[in-house]
Amino acid sequence: MRDFLPADKARRERVLSTIRSVYRLHGFDEIETPVMEDSSRLSAGLGGDNEKLAFGVLRRGLSAEDIHSATHGSELCDMGLRYDLTVPLARFYATNRAELAPVFRAIQIAPVWRAERPQKGRYRQFVQCDIDIIGEPGVLAEIELITATSETLRTLGITDTTIRINDRRILFGLLDHFGFADHETTLITIDKLDKIGVPGVVAELRERGAAADSVDRFADYLNSSAGPAEATRDGILAALPAGVAPDAVESLVTIATAVAGTASLQFDPFLVRGMGYYTGAIFEVAHPALGYSLGGGGRYDGMIGRFLGTDVPAVGFSLGFERLVDLVELAADTQTAQAALVYDAAMGLDDVLAHKRALVAEGTRVRLVAKTKNVRAILTQLERDGYTRYAFVNPGEPLAWKTIDASS
Amino acid sequence: MRDFLPADKARRERVLSTIRSVYRLHGFDEIETPVMEDSSRLSAGLGGDNEKLAFGVLRRGLSAEDIHSATHGSELCDMGLRYDLTVPLARFYATNRAELAPVFRAIQIAPVWRAERPQKGRYRQFVQCDIDIIGEPGVLAEIELITATSETLRTLGITDTTIRINDRRILFGLLDHFGFADHETTLITIDKLDKIGVPGVVAELRERGAAADSVDRFADYLNSSAGPAEATRDGILAALPAGVAPDAVESLVTIATAVAGTASLQFDPFLVRGMGYYTGAIFEVAHPALGYSLGGGGRYDGMIGRFLGTDVPAVGFSLGFERLVDLVELAADTQTAQAALVYDAAMGLDDVLAHKRALVAEGTRVRLVAKTKNVRAILTQLERDGYTRYAFVNPGEPLAWKTIDASS
Repeated sequence: MRDFLPADKARRERVLSTIRSVYRLHGFDEIETPVMEDSSRLSAGLGGDNEKLAFGVLRRGLSAEDIHSATHGSELCDMGLRYDLTVPLARFYATNRAELAPVFRAIQIAPVWRAERPQKGRYRQFVQCDIDIIGEPGVLAEIELITATSETLRTLGITDTTIRINDRRILFGLLDHFGFADHETTLITIDKLDKIGVPGVVAELRERGAAADSVDRFADYLNSSAGPAEATRDGILAALPAGVAPDAVESLVTIATAVAGTASLQFDPFLVRGMGYYTGAIFEVAHPALGYSLGGGGRYDGMIGRFLGTDVPAVGFSLGFERLVDLVELAADTQTAQAALVYDAAMGLDDVLAHKRALVAEGTRVRLVAKTKNVRAILTQLERDGYTRYAFVNPGEPLAWKTIDASS
Repeated sequence: MRDFLPADKARRERVLSTIRSVYRLHGFDEIETPVMEDSSRLSAGLGGDNEKLAFGVLRRGLSAEDIHSATHGSELCDMGLRYDLTVPLARFYATNRAELAPVFRAIQIAPVWRAERPQKGRYRQFVQCDIDIIGEPGVLAEIELITATSETLRTLGITDTTIRINDRRILFGLLDHFGFADHETTLITIDKLDKIGVPGVVAELRERGAAADSVDRFADYLNSSAGPAEATRDGILAALPAGVAPDAVESLVTIATAVAGTASLQFDPFLVRGMGYYTGAIFEVAHPALGYSLGGGGRYDGMIGRFLGTDVPAVGFSLGFERLVDLVELAADTQTAQAALVYDAAMGLDDVLAHKRALVAEGTRVRLVAKTKNVRAILTQLERDGYTRYAFVNPGEPLAWKTIDASS
């Protein structure tokens, strides 16, 4: 977990504000949920591996007896910090459905917490930017999500991204086609293709006891035409054995056609995405400079029903803000003039306060700095903090502005 | 803890954005700290009664043995959720001092958590807006804080507020003047003056065993000239027994004179403010329509030293956002045009997507709505969500905009 100093914080707020405004233009509405959710919801099996990483919040008013009768920490917690924004959204929708539009387009920009071992680029508190569409069964939802995400990235100046896309129904169709009985563990192995390659995947499938015939035929497929392909009807069809999941192929083609002018899409028949709740299209943002994805998402039609009792279709797209913010190159913030007034405390405060009042009234951001012998140090600090001009306050005299250039 | 729906969330973000920008104009810089702090810091005696209200975060990897050897929940927690923004700021400053300006003006706008029994107007998660000046020993700090806070309130359209001001040194001077030995408990009783009145305070002081002579003289004082007074030299001097805390009186006069044009100040010799860490000026924002304060603060020169080892002067002013946001009357947000496209899904998505693309490109916020038989219901929802015009999408035809007025 990190502190954010002024320059960092200002940068983060500017990037968040851009993301927020592009999402809003695309018709999404921001909501907010409490950082804590009931433990029972956080561990309902919808958070995948993240459930184990949830920070638990100790129940209030525990007696010594309560503590002694517990055998596991989870028995002492009634709430926890959210580890993603999807479980809270499903809970939010179930709670507030009556007041929301039938097709609800949500923005959530908020921190989540995971008790991971701290390592480079991983934080225990980090911000996610999620957009979700709840209540739209058709591919319009996927199209709007991919379009809004692509335009956000472009507005931030992050080009060169590719959105890898697949469909869970295509994955299951492939598994059926090759005769793999155990869908879940087979997908876990296929998900490692990027890391362990075709020989690794084939070996692991054998090791896990998949039918030899299935593995042989799948190995042939992997070694031939399979792999990332152009996201067009021809590209997708060429990358798949004939007849696999025709409905899913059709919706991918519709999505790909609709976003062709906006996003750079690539069909990847082996894109799995870890979460078990995905039911249809899945996507992931790849950037050539990064060894990990900038974000991802997919359709999770069964999840809202877990909280609501009635199934409601849903699709989401999440951007990892911490990864994003490092890629953004911001132009200098010239929206607000920044000026420093250097004053001599011995001369009283009336003049410096009057000058500050006048400058603020005209929209100039003002910092007061007490004069010291080391004016160079003052200017260095002001320049570092983004101030462009300064003036000494001399009673009865107008301000004589000087440009700040500590190096001169 | 509450969910915020789109209209609420948008309103909150707009108010926060105003607060942020006024604070920034006045030379303050926003920072952010993690929501969790080490338990040892949260319970170091600096949070007053709030320390007991901290949510504890369960330690990871606790064994059954760890649990059984504990006699109190706090032994199972290594971190907790912050209950205010002052303790985290002191920790932040101690950690990051080398990179900050010698006089550091901080903005913190962030949620805090307190495990209070839920009741009307009290939430377990709520947002505070704090500004603090660290490193300025003189009254310039108080003046800048009061000025920035008053201008923020005025910009939000909240007029009629009064800032009650006092100084801890005046309180201690009064106690010495009347010969009260136990400063701490006497202050606790005086703090109840608003609630229990002069007879209640006098009775409680006697009950607590204060010297009879002291109580008698203090009662005489309370019944005569004492009480809220004009915050001018004459007003302050008239409200106090002669010779009490002359230095503190002098600094209050300087503060009051400097902010006279900006804030409506009132001297209240019995304003106590609960926190034990205050050492100098203290202030509280009163609003005639509210039975509680909108915010408050004061000088806490000894606190940073608790974390840093070296004393550094500090003053802070905190606004309670939840109380504030209810008072603000926002003009309609006309910054962004909002338009809805009503489409017939059976006609394909090409036209509706092309129209959306064109509108978004020109800065119009667009919502797509599938046509249903009940157009009235669609319009009602759109109006409720702030949309002002809509058009039906007909393939090959230009959009014919209509104004949304569901009541017509």
